[in-house]
Amino acid sequence: MKRLDDLETPALVLDRDVLDSNLARMRERMSRLGVTLRPHVKTTKSIDILRRASPSAPGPITVSTLKEAEYFFEHGVRDILYAVGIAPGKLAHAADLTRRGADLTVVVDNLEAASVVEAVAMREQVRFPVLIELDVDGHRSGVTPESGLLLAIGRRLSSGRGAFLHGVMVHAGESYNCRSDDELRVAAERERAGAVRAAQRLRAEGLAAPVVSVGSTPTATFATDLSGVTEVRAGVYMLHDLVMAGIGVCKIEDIALSVLVSVIGCQQERGWIITDGGWMSLSRDRGTSNQPTDQGYGLVRDLAGRAPPEDLIVRTANQEHGIIGRRDGQPPDFSRYPVGTLLRILPNHACATAAQYNLYQVVAGLDSTILATWSRINGW
Amino acid sequence: MKRLDDLETPALVLDRDVLDSNLARMRERMSRLGVTLRPHVKTTKSIDILRRASPSAPGPITVSTLKEAEYFFEHGVRDILYAVGIAPGKLAHAADLTRRGADLTVVVDNLEAASVVEAVAMREQVRFPVLIELDVDGHRSGVTPESGLLLAIGRRLSSGRGAFLHGVMVHAGESYNCRSDDELRVAAERERAGAVRAAQRLRAEGLAAPVVSVGSTPTATFATDLSGVTEVRAGVYMLHDLVMAGIGVCKIEDIALSVLVSVIGCQQERGWIITDGGWMSLSRDRGTSNQPTDQGYGLVRDLAGRAPPEDLIVRTANQEHGIIGRRDGQPPDFSRYPVGTLLRILPNHACATAAQYNLYQVVAGLDSTILATWSRINGW
Repeated sequence: MKRLDDLETPALVLDRDVLDSNLARMRERMSRLGVTLRPHVKTTKSIDILRRASPSAPGPITVSTLKEAEYFFEHGVRDILYAVGIAPGKLAHAADLTRRGADLTVVVDNLEAASVVEAVAMREQVRFPVLIELDVDGHRSGVTPESGLLLAIGRRLSSGRGAFLHGVMVHAGESYNCRSDDELRVAAERERAGAVRAAQRLRAEGLAAPVVSVGSTPTATFATDLSGVTEVRAGVYMLHDLVMAGIGVCKIEDIALSVLVSVIGCQQERGWIITDGGWMSLSRDRGTSNQPTDQGYGLVRDLAGRAPPEDLIVRTANQEHGIIGRRDGQPPDFSRYPVGTLLRILPNHACATAAQYNLYQVVAGLDSTILATWSRINGW
Repeated sequence: MKRLDDLETPALVLDRDVLDSNLARMRERMSRLGVTLRPHVKTTKSIDILRRASPSAPGPITVSTLKEAEYFFEHGVRDILYAVGIAPGKLAHAADLTRRGADLTVVVDNLEAASVVEAVAMREQVRFPVLIELDVDGHRSGVTPESGLLLAIGRRLSSGRGAFLHGVMVHAGESYNCRSDDELRVAAERERAGAVRAAQRLRAEGLAAPVVSVGSTPTATFATDLSGVTEVRAGVYMLHDLVMAGIGVCKIEDIALSVLVSVIGCQQERGWIITDGGWMSLSRDRGTSNQPTDQGYGLVRDLAGRAPPEDLIVRTANQEHGIIGRRDGQPPDFSRYPVGTLLRILPNHACATAAQYNLYQVVAGLDSTILATWSRINGW
């Protein structure tokens, strides 16, 4: 069997044991809270990983692109929520998926989009379930739970032709900026309360809103009560990353993903170890730069995934060069890192890093044996 | 014929006229300076684009990965410089390329790598031409032109077995931080002088160093004299981007690449237009953030590539959401950007943005007709 040492670098490594532990923890959590887990596949984009995330049946899922919807539908997943406000130019494609048997839910947050969804659905002779996107923290899209617009969109979707109101969804994106467990619990309750309130207002108008969908990995991890919520969406919990660890959502040991790199030289005077793991392999994501601990372009581990004796991070990166140094700026013991040494870099942001690869090299624990190679998709 | 309006967004758009003009300008410049242009294909990674960059014959080229080397070799390119210090684990692959007929040059900047190159070449029964990488500006890898190590590596490569010294190469990466034409001219001369000096020192020791390879798009654009240099490497000049415009290397009108996005909603109170062009489509690169003009995640153009009446940038981005606003923070005229409006986003960094796609949608000038679809590769 191949081992990590047999790979050309950079390569994307996934620790199956850590993955499975992350998956089980979130499943148990959602089960305890009495809600359906609708995993967001935008992080992992892999049917192999989804089958482990949802072992009883692959789905329901959340997607961020119609390409993900196509890929998972081809692999037998029917219940799909496309959780980005639908662009009119994508509706014909969405209708085609629906005609082929997908149970595809789309999202709107304005009257124009609601009207276009209805018009295209009628033209294409399909019926789209529609969720209204809510805004509870000023993060990006959505209407506020108390707005008149919420009810206006609900009524617009109540003609019974083409589209039908299916409920509400919200993503508490600002939870990524929380700095304590208490703040995370507050963010989770704000997300829950806003979604439930919006659904209640729609129902009070006589509009059906059976689905109350909330989620983000931070709020899913810290919610203590999900009364009134029907489903939770989360994605990065499967792999975790340094940003999640920085928020306090996971421990460093829960990070399942790493990038395998080779040492190609050093600059001893500057305290630099040079590798072939540049920003193309790690992504340009610097999500820890505004956290209490800035991890540079990633935190360094040895080939077995263990912390080296010195606290090393990827300090800077060019396209195909990574520059590793000690966090404290002191020179590392260069004798430990001769040319050809393999290292593993824990990523700032799993979604961004994984997107640079088509394959996961799957290992388990300290063993470098490659147990499987799992594919993933990218693009649109 | 298909038009940009027929595409699902996000999509990568390439203006062929701007590309051809960028290509011609650099070719003429290098011809005038009397050096060979060895285009760096790490930006564009497309045989279709290389054929326009080097119309007489596809090559010589510079690559940043062996995957690029494989791809271009399969398309008929023989003369390939792999311009990243070679990792020992890649040498068997490099030898295989050589055996199949590629004229592949590798790069080292230390004695360990030089020894490994020689040893693997002997084992694999090939001969690698080797360039010694130089450091003239403390940017990343390389030995200084005045160092004893330069000569030691040169001597190590002079056994005549397996590897042979072919010359020196340098990349003045710090030129990206220049802020004036004068600084750029100084950086270009520092790059030239360092490379020529290193080659002279090697030759004075009786070592052959016929190749003197320099390059970066900024220094290639501002060099006024390249005496002693044999070839220039540059890549991003083909497409240009906002970082290059910020340095003064190109005008905004020279940027050939853009990302087509759809408006999916707005948040009027916050002055935000929401699109489906998030950081996955634009890349996480924020290379203009430390330049005099911070372009956010990109500068907004209309469907035809023209500047809109208001100065709009992508202010923030989520994975599949882009948030556009006026640079001055004032609310835009929302009536101009209804749901479904198509916009084009000029990227901070062409290398990073193009890497999120497998295809270029090729247009010319103000016309939205798609004239061709060119493929590109990614990964390792």
